[in-house]
Amino acid sequence: MIIVLKPDAPEDAIQSILARIADAGLKPLHMPGSERVVLGALGDERVLASLNLDGSPHVESVKPILAPYKLVSREMHPHDTIVAIGSMKLGGTGFKVIAGPCAVETAEQTRNTAQAVKKAGASALRGGAYKPRTSPYGFNGHGPAGLKILQETSKEVGLPVVTEVMDTADVDRVADHVDALQIGARNMQNFALLHAVGKSGKPVVLKRGMTARIEEFLLAAEYLLAAGNDQVVLCERGIRTFETATRNTLDLNAIPLIKQKTHLPVIVDPSHGTGIRDLVIPMALAAAACGADGLMVEVHENPAVALSDGAQSLYPDQFDALMKALKPVVEAVGRRL
Amino acid sequence: MIIVLKPDAPEDAIQSILARIADAGLKPLHMPGSERVVLGALGDERVLASLNLDGSPHVESVKPILAPYKLVSREMHPHDTIVAIGSMKLGGTGFKVIAGPCAVETAEQTRNTAQAVKKAGASALRGGAYKPRTSPYGFNGHGPAGLKILQETSKEVGLPVVTEVMDTADVDRVADHVDALQIGARNMQNFALLHAVGKSGKPVVLKRGMTARIEEFLLAAEYLLAAGNDQVVLCERGIRTFETATRNTLDLNAIPLIKQKTHLPVIVDPSHGTGIRDLVIPMALAAAACGADGLMVEVHENPAVALSDGAQSLYPDQFDALMKALKPVVEAVGRRL
Amino acid sequence: MIIVLKPDAPEDAIQSILARIADAGLKPLHMPGSERVVLGALGDERVLASLNLDGSPHVESVKPILAPYKLVSREMHPHDTIVAIGSMKLGGTGFKVIAGPCAVETAEQTRNTAQAVKKAGASALRGGAYKPRTSPYGFNGHGPAGLKILQETSKEVGLPVVTEVMDTADVDRVADHVDALQIGARNMQNFALLHAVGKSGKPVVLKRGMTARIEEFLLAAEYLLAAGNDQVVLCERGIRTFETATRNTLDLNAIPLIKQKTHLPVIVDPSHGTGIRDLVIPMALAAAACGADGLMVEVHENPAVALSDGAQSLYPDQFDALMKALKPVVEAVGRRL
Amino acid sequence: MIIVLKPDAPEDAIQSILARIADAGLKPLHMPGSERVVLGALGDERVLASLNLDGSPHVESVKPILAPYKLVSREMHPHDTIVAIGSMKLGGTGFKVIAGPCAVETAEQTRNTAQAVKKAGASALRGGAYKPRTSPYGFNGHGPAGLKILQETSKEVGLPVVTEVMDTADVDRVADHVDALQIGARNMQNFALLHAVGKSGKPVVLKRGMTARIEEFLLAAEYLLAAGNDQVVLCERGIRTFETATRNTLDLNAIPLIKQKTHLPVIVDPSHGTGIRDLVIPMALAAAACGADGLMVEVHENPAVALSDGAQSLYPDQFDALMKALKPVVEAVGRRL
Repeated sequence: MIIVLKPDAPEDAIQSILARIADAGLKPLHMPGSERVVLGALGDERVLASLNLDGSPHVESVKPILAPYKLVSREMHPHDTIVAIGSMKLGGTGFKVIAGPCAVETAEQTRNTAQAVKKAGASALRGGAYKPRTSPYGFNGHGPAGLKILQETSKEVGLPVVTEVMDTADVDRVADHVDALQIGARNMQNFALLHAVGKSGKPVVLKRGMTARIEEFLLAAEYLLAAGNDQVVLCERGIRTFETATRNTLDLNAIPLIKQKTHLPVIVDPSHGTGIRDLVIPMALAAAACGADGLMVEVHENPAVALSDGAQSLYPDQFDALMKALKPVVEAVGRRL
Repeated sequence: MIIVLKPDAPEDAIQSILARIADAGLKPLHMPGSERVVLGALGDERVLASLNLDGSPHVESVKPILAPYKLVSREMHPHDTIVAIGSMKLGGTGFKVIAGPCAVETAEQTRNTAQAVKKAGASALRGGAYKPRTSPYGFNGHGPAGLKILQETSKEVGLPVVTEVMDTADVDRVADHVDALQIGARNMQNFALLHAVGKSGKPVVLKRGMTARIEEFLLAAEYLLAAGNDQVVLCERGIRTFETATRNTLDLNAIPLIKQKTHLPVIVDPSHGTGIRDLVIPMALAAAACGADGLMVEVHENPAVALSDGAQSLYPDQFDALMKALKPVVEAVGRRL
Repeated sequence: MIIVLKPDAPEDAIQSILARIADAGLKPLHMPGSERVVLGALGDERVLASLNLDGSPHVESVKPILAPYKLVSREMHPHDTIVAIGSMKLGGTGFKVIAGPCAVETAEQTRNTAQAVKKAGASALRGGAYKPRTSPYGFNGHGPAGLKILQETSKEVGLPVVTEVMDTADVDRVADHVDALQIGARNMQNFALLHAVGKSGKPVVLKRGMTARIEEFLLAAEYLLAAGNDQVVLCERGIRTFETATRNTLDLNAIPLIKQKTHLPVIVDPSHGTGIRDLVIPMALAAAACGADGLMVEVHENPAVALSDGAQSLYPDQFDALMKALKPVVEAVGRRL
Repeated sequence: MIIVLKPDAPEDAIQSILARIADAGLKPLHMPGSERVVLGALGDERVLASLNLDGSPHVESVKPILAPYKLVSREMHPHDTIVAIGSMKLGGTGFKVIAGPCAVETAEQTRNTAQAVKKAGASALRGGAYKPRTSPYGFNGHGPAGLKILQETSKEVGLPVVTEVMDTADVDRVADHVDALQIGARNMQNFALLHAVGKSGKPVVLKRGMTARIEEFLLAAEYLLAAGNDQVVLCERGIRTFETATRNTLDLNAIPLIKQKTHLPVIVDPSHGTGIRDLVIPMALAAAACGADGLMVEVHENPAVALSDGAQSLYPDQFDALMKALKPVVEAVGRRL
């Protein structure tokens, strides 16, 4: 950690800060320059952060040097973590696709869509029983009845299931019905939920918040690992920017960067990442090309009448075309679908 | 709602969309142009949204005309709502200041800070017992013990208390100890929490999410009102932008705009809105000048050793200076402090 | 164009707006709803925009329906435009790579780099003689001497050259020395420069501004076409967002979207789009996978001593690896390198 | 400057970087930690930046410590600079208002508006002869004829004039007709224009780019001072963010921050900063409250028929109301209007 002092910082304040660094068991450094005094502190960045040195009126800025996360870091754990969601293994050299409707609407719609995506080559089913909606007047899912449909469809069709959980009070119930819990973008920093899902031990798909820097995304994952759960899949799903032609801006830069920083698998959701059906296939191919470990894609048996996210859901035949187009791209980067 | 069709939309698709609009009890409009067919639908925008017309492969875009919120709208409820938090009334022509430490650290620190802000003219105390922290290794509050300190300080010093609640499981407990519940920026779209806090009937301070558009902010408030709670104070606390010189970008444009759109009171948090102690006073004055109903300000008896947010917390004598500087500005815009 | 009126708009104001629409030779529409009056106007969106109806105190908002550009629009011109830059043809089913140093530093550095990129398979050379620099103290290029080096290198090595022009006063001189003019991100809305480069008739590489919406990017291209120049290549090079882990956020969503909207070729600059050498190859592959027509990549014979952009420049052997990795991805999406 | 090395940086690379720092006449520091080696360099940040140390494959990141600007810095020049634009003096304890139409449309419209704003208390006139327009089909100003109208109006009405210049080729001509040159937001990093305007010696109003960080804004001003012109007024006019309810997000945080960092005066443009007529007055008051030295406001004799920016232009009587409302706020913060 580097501590830049204000131009007029008095000597006793400097000595006091150096003493606080030393008292915390870290190595203090004193670097007087011509215009400013700069202090350094070498050691565990987490301990340094807990000193809250930026609260001092003589400190202009504090610049961390090392990453603030540990358990998710590839430096500490160089080998890829493989996350098993039922029969699907994410991470390593494979490339897997999770597909299904935005929301569970009916048993029939769920089953039809599940059969279609399985036939086309998907490895897991997605579908929402609890739906976060910007407006209180939107369709917000069937809740427990939706979970039951998911569980039955999973057995019948033979695909593991991922579904979102939004409330700490629902974690156990949701975990009993599905193979992996999803934490949605709006809840990426719902720390109570992160803790509860971490404690559940269930595999997790953690979506990046719309406004989350990559470092914050990895710190949210660190919450899960710190609670004892290392079965975590990261999911890039687009960030919010000034661009309004697409629903979100899919940040694919994040994929190779995250692969460098962490051992956890990372997948891409091109449906939310674009919000436009016609962009889903090209962006799915781009995700595969830049090193993602898989995809999460919205597919609906008839998007024109979907209760949510119809504009970004693929028709079953489009999903089939996506799977066919993916194969040569995945192989071109040395992986297998 | 205006529905712009794709250039090649077939006639039967057009008729089918018009029929869905009419079936929903709304008035359909057909506007054929030289380059595109445009459809319109007049009536309740919430019903229109539920048709999910953008899921059709023949629809290029859907443009709502009316606001998607109702209960928070000033059009439906022209007069200012006054929210009573203990003895403090927010809204109307007064201007109120809520102040206190980021976190409850000790009983003594809380009491000392509370006494200082009361003496300087604050109308309510803030302080966190449950703290959302980006890193799992940060100080995350004393929980129930912190609530007890807040309750005792409130009685002793004679100030109503606002504190954050982060988990639906804690709503009742927190509501029993304080005068108003705060929903933090990270939880603005935690819909389970919005629903639970709405049901509690307790006054709420709802903070704008870092990435929330004003319309989304008002829709989050609509969740609270739809759950039966109209004692809602909105709080602008800065949004996330590309600017890194400040912790957030305080969006004061939002204040006069929100005052136009809704009858609910709106306050400003210049501490989180800037992240820099030296900017808190000027931005507090700006908030008062553009029509805010009050402020929420972080003050600590000694920010240099604060366990969180020290860099943006005022020293007690700075808070006293703020209150003195506020008075003539508040009066210049025809209000009273 | 849809014109939403304020709730209290008087009848005479409504009639006056309808008359202005009709006087402009367009078709006015009157749509009275239960809460608002909405007006419509069908016809040329450019004429509609020139009415400036949003200046009226009775208008709440104005929503255009059609795109504001014409000449660049694929609706008007369905077939791909092929842009010839010397021997290189951009657009259609090929995939081309422009590579070279950020800046022309010396004749030797330029020649060595040019030879290396040609050998690896690049189709054109890039290199800056005039460099936009955020600080007035940065290296800002050798100007006319740099142009001469580029011209000589081009002949010697046998690669067409693209270079940036920053000032209307330099357009003729730069056009005399190179095969295509680049308009940089910071000048995307330098309308005087757009006009002068449009008039020059020289092929242009137009980079997207850091803060430009896709519609504004296409309108900047419309300036070039409106001045008589249709030899325009669009270049996505990253936008500015809240993310600080990368220099920019490469917006690959823009590629398939732009290909839908316009007939002009579009390429990707993964060097500026990431700012990090290790991310250039994966993002170049992603660009190819989602449908870009080519790449612009920074390569330096020794990035460790480059005078600018060293952190994002590839070493020659890395560029060679990129070209080898590109081939199967380009072929996987049905194109040829 | 702090240089963080990659974990595996070899000893000879470390020594080579230390040698480059020492060769540049700066003081190198070696700080080996348990996880990383960190290097430091003390001295002129501009020299350090020119070493381009981030180009090395062994460097992970480079963190500057001191500001990269010098001439605009308050550390080098503690006293407020007063900029004289004709009879108007900006800076110090006064508060001045520049007002007028977006564009010069006719001599009569310009004169009427100028007389109205003068009567209400404005100190200078604004008006565009050259207008940057997003679309090539928008009204782009009358050019030289507009300059003549401005010059004549200035004499007749007795107000100094500020107008935008967009092309280096026009700098002399524009400078001959008006009292101050404006560099618009889109040209804030048009370095050729900054250099030419700097050389002209004419007072300048430099608008912040839509996507410019405060540091970049100050570096753009540094270009002007480095070219010999210290008569520079900075103008905050809103930045681009995800918020779409307003045209831009007015970043008032920038005002007190810029006043700390530089000795140059800073004004606020609430017209572009909001894009909405009804928000102009409250945001003008907020600008005064947080320490701005003045305002630039769009006023039109009849905004409903303005050729540009009608939606954000005040009616003359609204401008009069603004000036009356400003007085007590300006005085409340210890200044005089």
